[in-house]
Amino acid sequence: MEESAVKKIAVFTSGGDAPGMNAALRAVVRTASHFKIECYGVREGYNGLINDDFTKMGPRSVKNIIGAGGTILRSARSLEFKTKEGRKKAYDNLVKRGIDGLVCIGGDGTFTGAKIFNEEFGVKVIGIPGTIDNDIFGTDNTIGYDTALNTAMEAIDKIRDTATSHNRVFFVEVMGRDAGFIALNSGIATGAVDILIPERKDSIDDLFETFEKAEKAGKTSSIVVVAEGEKLGSIYDLAKATKAGFPDYDIRVAILGHIQRGGSPSCADRVLASRLGYGAVIGLMAGKTNKMAGMQSNNLVYTPFEEAIKKHNEIDQNLLKLSEILAI
Amino acid sequence: MEESAVKKIAVFTSGGDAPGMNAALRAVVRTASHFKIECYGVREGYNGLINDDFTKMGPRSVKNIIGAGGTILRSARSLEFKTKEGRKKAYDNLVKRGIDGLVCIGGDGTFTGAKIFNEEFGVKVIGIPGTIDNDIFGTDNTIGYDTALNTAMEAIDKIRDTATSHNRVFFVEVMGRDAGFIALNSGIATGAVDILIPERKDSIDDLFETFEKAEKAGKTSSIVVVAEGEKLGSIYDLAKATKAGFPDYDIRVAILGHIQRGGSPSCADRVLASRLGYGAVIGLMAGKTNKMAGMQSNNLVYTPFEEAIKKHNEIDQNLLKLSEILAI
Amino acid sequence: MEESAVKKIAVFTSGGDAPGMNAALRAVVRTASHFKIECYGVREGYNGLINDDFTKMGPRSVKNIIGAGGTILRSARSLEFKTKEGRKKAYDNLVKRGIDGLVCIGGDGTFTGAKIFNEEFGVKVIGIPGTIDNDIFGTDNTIGYDTALNTAMEAIDKIRDTATSHNRVFFVEVMGRDAGFIALNSGIATGAVDILIPERKDSIDDLFETFEKAEKAGKTSSIVVVAEGEKLGSIYDLAKATKAGFPDYDIRVAILGHIQRGGSPSCADRVLASRLGYGAVIGLMAGKTNKMAGMQSNNLVYTPFEEAIKKHNEIDQNLLKLSEILAI
Amino acid sequence: MEESAVKKIAVFTSGGDAPGMNAALRAVVRTASHFKIECYGVREGYNGLINDDFTKMGPRSVKNIIGAGGTILRSARSLEFKTKEGRKKAYDNLVKRGIDGLVCIGGDGTFTGAKIFNEEFGVKVIGIPGTIDNDIFGTDNTIGYDTALNTAMEAIDKIRDTATSHNRVFFVEVMGRDAGFIALNSGIATGAVDILIPERKDSIDDLFETFEKAEKAGKTSSIVVVAEGEKLGSIYDLAKATKAGFPDYDIRVAILGHIQRGGSPSCADRVLASRLGYGAVIGLMAGKTNKMAGMQSNNLVYTPFEEAIKKHNEIDQNLLKLSEILAI
Repeated sequence: MEESAVKKIAVFTSGGDAPGMNAALRAVVRTASHFKIECYGVREGYNGLINDDFTKMGPRSVKNIIGAGGTILRSARSLEFKTKEGRKKAYDNLVKRGIDGLVCIGGDGTFTGAKIFNEEFGVKVIGIPGTIDNDIFGTDNTIGYDTALNTAMEAIDKIRDTATSHNRVFFVEVMGRDAGFIALNSGIATGAVDILIPERKDSIDDLFETFEKAEKAGKTSSIVVVAEGEKLGSIYDLAKATKAGFPDYDIRVAILGHIQRGGSPSCADRVLASRLGYGAVIGLMAGKTNKMAGMQSNNLVYTPFEEAIKKHNEIDQNLLKLSEILAI
Repeated sequence: MEESAVKKIAVFTSGGDAPGMNAALRAVVRTASHFKIECYGVREGYNGLINDDFTKMGPRSVKNIIGAGGTILRSARSLEFKTKEGRKKAYDNLVKRGIDGLVCIGGDGTFTGAKIFNEEFGVKVIGIPGTIDNDIFGTDNTIGYDTALNTAMEAIDKIRDTATSHNRVFFVEVMGRDAGFIALNSGIATGAVDILIPERKDSIDDLFETFEKAEKAGKTSSIVVVAEGEKLGSIYDLAKATKAGFPDYDIRVAILGHIQRGGSPSCADRVLASRLGYGAVIGLMAGKTNKMAGMQSNNLVYTPFEEAIKKHNEIDQNLLKLSEILAI
Repeated sequence: MEESAVKKIAVFTSGGDAPGMNAALRAVVRTASHFKIECYGVREGYNGLINDDFTKMGPRSVKNIIGAGGTILRSARSLEFKTKEGRKKAYDNLVKRGIDGLVCIGGDGTFTGAKIFNEEFGVKVIGIPGTIDNDIFGTDNTIGYDTALNTAMEAIDKIRDTATSHNRVFFVEVMGRDAGFIALNSGIATGAVDILIPERKDSIDDLFETFEKAEKAGKTSSIVVVAEGEKLGSIYDLAKATKAGFPDYDIRVAILGHIQRGGSPSCADRVLASRLGYGAVIGLMAGKTNKMAGMQSNNLVYTPFEEAIKKHNEIDQNLLKLSEILAI
Repeated sequence: MEESAVKKIAVFTSGGDAPGMNAALRAVVRTASHFKIECYGVREGYNGLINDDFTKMGPRSVKNIIGAGGTILRSARSLEFKTKEGRKKAYDNLVKRGIDGLVCIGGDGTFTGAKIFNEEFGVKVIGIPGTIDNDIFGTDNTIGYDTALNTAMEAIDKIRDTATSHNRVFFVEVMGRDAGFIALNSGIATGAVDILIPERKDSIDDLFETFEKAEKAGKTSSIVVVAEGEKLGSIYDLAKATKAGFPDYDIRVAILGHIQRGGSPSCADRVLASRLGYGAVIGLMAGKTNKMAGMQSNNLVYTPFEEAIKKHNEIDQNLLKLSEILAI
């Protein structure tokens, strides 16, 4: 085996938390240990780099965390890291310990920070995509996405019980400020009569038409799943407009909110996180930097941060079409 | 065995749905069948009585529903039943079929309707308490309450993951317009730093003091569970006031909403519903009427509707005290 | 407030683990802290007392454990504590630290050890019933029982899916070596066609009759829930005998096993554990000893160990009868 | 749009049931309805074809089944379909109704029957891979696999609680007679110390070495996940051999069994089943036959039955290696 390009690494989680971040952390720490690379955990993302909040981690530091939601390293947004001074402090802390490689677990914002840091100071860095939104280019799925889908689906299944019992129409908002992945997939999985996502130009007329068709088809209750970032209006606007168009409807609104970020990760997320944690470390060892580790068609791939940040996973148009056909 | 006081009965669900209503329905139908009493299911509560929406039900009509959320008979509020004319129509439908006993599954409002109906027309009726709020006098627990507690708790556990990861303060609203049972118990079960319920006079000062104590104790994140009917203000008001008092806090609001009404009933709810369904039928057979079947200290008891409607289950003051001690 | 009868206490878990033991531990530690009583955790039950494995615990030592399955203090059976010499060592360790009160969380065996220890050395001790079997006298429910019921029920619900899809008969073994509580309640909750428990004299003839009735009633698949301690035979014996009697049946056996001991505790178990943990500490403070804290009809009660060990919770005969009526 | 190659189709489920079969059925029925193709459901697999057990199905026949475990059409093994006479009867029933296309949901055995049937009688047929084992070539995942993974993982998580509390070694058997997919992935997801699968030549020496390393690493409890089809020996043999080698170990065995086949399908399985149900129908419409619909890298692909039956999905060697690295 060739010599590793890094000797000591640090790992941190940043941005919104996602289920499976702990599993990724565990994989980073244990892979590093396997290859005799020293590993530090940094608390609260970029803030910890700046504030020198490092702990040395070994295999036992991450025991029994593979199934834990959230992130034991905690996460935070860091204004200071957006300044050159902040980044300099962070760099000095790395130098002080001889840390020559970084693994950052997070999303777009996290990678943007890492890219700048790498360009300024040359510290090798590999990113791991951890976000429930699944909108990061360079990986089929992001860590946390599969768990969030199941959480959203289970919540909507529960809402379905009460919708059916009372012949009601529910508008259910799921997470996804810029992306409709959660909405589209959880909507298909729960038989939503309509799914509104930011990637598609929706209209109230289309929505009304859907309701009319549903009525004709004999449906007595309906669920409309709406992504947080839907452009047609807030979920309250939509409910209000619908009430105006269909005064007889008994309409309710539900916002699933932060439950979608928590919970024990699904098997798929734990395995994905394990693979990417491993991939990040062997990537650093092989001298890779400024890249994100991802899984595509079951293969470990490394995508330059630049691309991962600029491009976005696209909603599958076939799925959109499918959702309409199956909602009849 | 003595002769039954009823020969044909009908059963319906009314008011807000609750997990376990189907289990109660199944028990009513099968107990009736066991005792050779004919049984009809009525759709959509009192509306079905008025609109003559009856189906004959036997043991196989209720197969595999013991674990189903919602109510297969559906539920509805009925304005027409509040009129004498409406009730007369309902009565005529019963007479037409020779139905001489009713089982109604629901809450306060349901029992109020049943009481009036019984007083006007003399039809024997027994109620079964089905509501997640647990505020009905005459039974230790109402059907659906235990399930709702677990649903709320699991959701708050998920929120805890993200609260901890980000050092945040979450205000979480749970159901309970008039009663704090869900808030108090789910709050204790999730280690809430404070629990706000309509039964207690809360104040912003007390809340702030709690936050100060929590900070001093070294807590970096907190969850406050708030009952829907909390009198101090809406959850948004509380969050806003807290932000004013603690500008550094990263505060979030979550409203659990209708997921609390749905889902497959817990074991305790299925068993309770089975016992009360049975109890309602043998109560009718024994000539009881205008009463609610309940379980108290593991005994089947019948409480006059009048009492069940007027009185309310009281929050246990010891639990309130306990919640404060354990939140340190 | 009167002076406390104890100044320093120790707490440990012993015997089979049960979900909610951590919640009880948390309540003991925090209640002690609230009343300014020093508190030590002892690892691995009586072994830890003997081997001097104590840790001082404060409110933060038990943070975020209310929802954790198992017991962070671990548990073990101790042969050495059955000897006078072992108990003497344990006592010396308590004396050394000035510990004058003990809280033990466990079952019959745990309380027996505590009773002897108290009688020999006079150390005050209060027990908390933690076992999934629910067979301890002096409390309506033991800690872990409600969770185990839900775990068993959810597993049997899953088995029901495949039983129904294939017209199969399943024998499902649930825990309960001496008691049929889990079998009876999970059996009712899952619509088992028959429930076999050690408390009742069952016969193969009765079982066969049940199958014949089920066939006549049009059932195409069946689940029989069997308690571990059933006296009629092992679950394999029962399956074999049934196959001999009904050669056409497609029979399967499932043993739920240790999954029933694990998992995050239910809301009811977390609240119960919290109350009993509190109750144990205030019991000790009030000078009580050689007693078990329990909840009966929502009241905190203390039952002498002697009684708690000798007597047993009895299966409710009405429930047994109900299970037959509802299985039609 | 071109004219469809089929006018009336029938759909059935066959072989072992898997979560998501109902979602696939729903998609078949609704897609057919969307394209104005008549659709029949056949009960109990090939037996239903022979015994003329058909029901006409429309969009409402499949309402609210997307989340239901098992298969509402039921499944069965058919000896009669293995005879030419049996298949002739089945063909006659199709002719009688003018059915010119078939969708079969199942595994290897199901497709083998379909292939022969197609070759003999020329009826167009498309298969949908529904099995929890994931060992079918031509699709990244089979329907039910993701759900089974989560079910197995959650069960093992629970076992972990009790293993940790008691310093025990657990051998846990998961499904997979010929394939180690469930074992490998659920083992990684639960931090199993070792994973034994039929695809790899395991040895007792390797297993013992693993235990020795685990001990040295300071692990006090361990879980070994074993696939049903492991060739080194039954799970009881393995436990016995381990006890002989490590007499101090407190060893337990758990067989997860049929719970892995049941339960409400995960979001991934519901979406996959929806896509494949749709894919099967448009495949038939486009004149395809003797092929299985699958998803590969997010694309709908059709694999000849011959290939789907002969070849098998291969275990990813990288995952095996990863499982060892992360278990340190």
